[in-house]
Amino acid sequence: MTEGLPIAEVVVTPIAFPDPPLLNSAGVHQPWALRTIVEVHTRDGIVGLGETYGDAGHLALVRRAAAAAAGLDVFDLAGLRRRVADAVGVVDEPDRHGLTGPSTPAKTLLRVFSPLEVGCLDAQGQAIGRPVYDLLGGRVRDRVPFSAYLFYKWGAHPGAEPDEWGEALDPDAIVAQARRMIDRYGFGSIKLKGGVFPPEQEIAAIRALRAAFPDHPLRLDPNAAWTVDTSVRVAQETDGLLEYLEDPTPGIPGMAEVAARAPMPLATNMCVVGYADIPEAFARGAVGVVLSDHHYWGGLRSSARLAAVCETWDVGLSMHSNSHLGISLAAMAHLGAATPNLTYAADTHTPWQCGVDVLEKPLSIMDGAVPVPAGPGLGVSLDRDALARMHEDYQRCGIRERDDTAYMTSIVPSYEKRLPRW
Amino acid sequence: MTEGLPIAEVVVTPIAFPDPPLLNSAGVHQPWALRTIVEVHTRDGIVGLGETYGDAGHLALVRRAAAAAAGLDVFDLAGLRRRVADAVGVVDEPDRHGLTGPSTPAKTLLRVFSPLEVGCLDAQGQAIGRPVYDLLGGRVRDRVPFSAYLFYKWGAHPGAEPDEWGEALDPDAIVAQARRMIDRYGFGSIKLKGGVFPPEQEIAAIRALRAAFPDHPLRLDPNAAWTVDTSVRVAQETDGLLEYLEDPTPGIPGMAEVAARAPMPLATNMCVVGYADIPEAFARGAVGVVLSDHHYWGGLRSSARLAAVCETWDVGLSMHSNSHLGISLAAMAHLGAATPNLTYAADTHTPWQCGVDVLEKPLSIMDGAVPVPAGPGLGVSLDRDALARMHEDYQRCGIRERDDTAYMTSIVPSYEKRLPRW
Repeated sequence: MTEGLPIAEVVVTPIAFPDPPLLNSAGVHQPWALRTIVEVHTRDGIVGLGETYGDAGHLALVRRAAAAAAGLDVFDLAGLRRRVADAVGVVDEPDRHGLTGPSTPAKTLLRVFSPLEVGCLDAQGQAIGRPVYDLLGGRVRDRVPFSAYLFYKWGAHPGAEPDEWGEALDPDAIVAQARRMIDRYGFGSIKLKGGVFPPEQEIAAIRALRAAFPDHPLRLDPNAAWTVDTSVRVAQETDGLLEYLEDPTPGIPGMAEVAARAPMPLATNMCVVGYADIPEAFARGAVGVVLSDHHYWGGLRSSARLAAVCETWDVGLSMHSNSHLGISLAAMAHLGAATPNLTYAADTHTPWQCGVDVLEKPLSIMDGAVPVPAGPGLGVSLDRDALARMHEDYQRCGIRERDDTAYMTSIVPSYEKRLPRW
Repeated sequence: MTEGLPIAEVVVTPIAFPDPPLLNSAGVHQPWALRTIVEVHTRDGIVGLGETYGDAGHLALVRRAAAAAAGLDVFDLAGLRRRVADAVGVVDEPDRHGLTGPSTPAKTLLRVFSPLEVGCLDAQGQAIGRPVYDLLGGRVRDRVPFSAYLFYKWGAHPGAEPDEWGEALDPDAIVAQARRMIDRYGFGSIKLKGGVFPPEQEIAAIRALRAAFPDHPLRLDPNAAWTVDTSVRVAQETDGLLEYLEDPTPGIPGMAEVAARAPMPLATNMCVVGYADIPEAFARGAVGVVLSDHHYWGGLRSSARLAAVCETWDVGLSMHSNSHLGISLAAMAHLGAATPNLTYAADTHTPWQCGVDVLEKPLSIMDGAVPVPAGPGLGVSLDRDALARMHEDYQRCGIRERDDTAYMTSIVPSYEKRLPRW
């Protein structure tokens, strides 16, 4: 052990899995979601796992970083960061779907570093027989709460069979979706992805959810689909209904204007998406809740530091989610277990993956929370048959970039992405 | 390992060691400095080390916390913090000498938790065969730079033999002290503890140091001995001479006033001494450099989070020092090794301890830096004979609280502590 635990090889596998036609302010989810699975193999046979975005440009950078990691001690995360920085250089690869604003080399580095860092932490934990949360300072909770994540959606992708969730385009269908999701997973809070219909319709959905679930905290996330004035109006009309309003309008100045007049806190995963955004956003009071995401905040340790920053300024903290699989859910569970100020239930797309996973034993969501795996490491292992199948799906699905707008336009030619729209 | 590494016992030993008559804005160092050595013994025989203040009130709380730690897994730092919090309760034990402002229960908790956290990290590292810096995210440097820490001083405590450093009460003697210290340790930067003489005399000392050491960055720390106007005047008169001016005046509002008119950054270990101080201080631009100190910032992990906060706001970072021994120096070295944004050489009182230590092999300062011990853990071990002797010194020295002012008054009855004085 004192000689270190050198990395023999980092294996990078792009995969695809079926994704329902979930609607958002940028369009609609394509039939396949892409991810990249990262395996950190040590010379003595440990395999640490990480998971990240699957878009082609990002995948190429992850491959380049993975090649540079060989030979490094898995405990040397500072060295890993230097090698990833050298490998990535000053490349500025846009985040095409995370809605995380203009790309910068710093953001690119954090996104590429993340799955390697998670894989190394998993390997560290396995090597020393410890769960990852112990490497993050120890566990403050043994169940990490998640919220029901509701979407307006079509019943099926064009030409395909309907998915199990069915169509949801009005308040009644949203309530039915919530009921089904809560019956199945026990979620204790509810988030509606908005920005799809005019605000009045989405307010109506929130009122219907409140009537059907009087005790569930509610959130609405239009992904910056509204102007400042519309945001203020919606905020005032939903006074007393929402625990937070998420990214009503684009940019820190706009969010600050809304925040000054909104009765509830504003949350964001769009205007505070890197350390460089924090001073201005906090100074202007633009956000009351940061939705962290280890995939673009540079891994689990960096996300823990973000949590400390939020705690210092008494800003709330939750977690953002893109379509993901079980490795990311396990990483979120360990991070959530070790984060004292996780002040709101986290987001997850897990229910939308309909049981598809790359894990031998997918984590379960019970009573609205993920019981934190006891480890060692992340406490999960790859189902290599599933990985191979999902890699084949990647090869044949034809999608190489997530592009909700282009897909929507291919179906609804008159569609035009506009932020803000209302 | 998966069953954990339970703590059998935490042994707490107060010690005393000779301290020269170093002058500062609160009086003069007493003939004995007090420390408390904390040993975290695991059931399987590992001993993790921590070091903290020795004042009676603090010692009593550390003893109470130590008793509460038995049975806990050394990796469960979150659990340790809960136990320490329960053991300490809402006690609000003033920091009598750290000059860290009004006490709060939150500050008390962080001070009591710190040596136990360091001891547990040392034990963790030993258990897994890894240096502590690997538990903090990996090493970004293998030598941690420290600065020469100059003091005005008497030649001897009254009635005692002169110490090896001799008297230093004017610019020439300060230059001689610097030369001797730099010849011995190779320091690449120089800090003068001020607040002892009227500012003009201390400015003269800085000018003399600049003349003698044209390439060494210089710092001056009057420990809040000056009014805002005096601070601004000194800052302007030392334009181009100082890399930073440390705590010229008390309090965040005063520091902000000075910072707005000073040509150099202001550093502090007096007005930003806990997380609660940060938002106001940063918002007002009161400080350009935070001098962190793991003894009161809650240990090494919390100090790493403080570093991340400073990095986010582009505020500089160095480390503060009180009289300490080698366990603390090792902890500072590991923390410094793992802190990317340690932007200035750290302070240390090590030269003033004249070779006295509790370690079998004291760390050396070479070319102005401490080579970071390779571990495992902190990479140091107790000299139990020395510990026993220093505990006997504690028993017979008669000092139970550090009180520079009372000691000064006992020698110079007309002395009166006043901050600001000039």
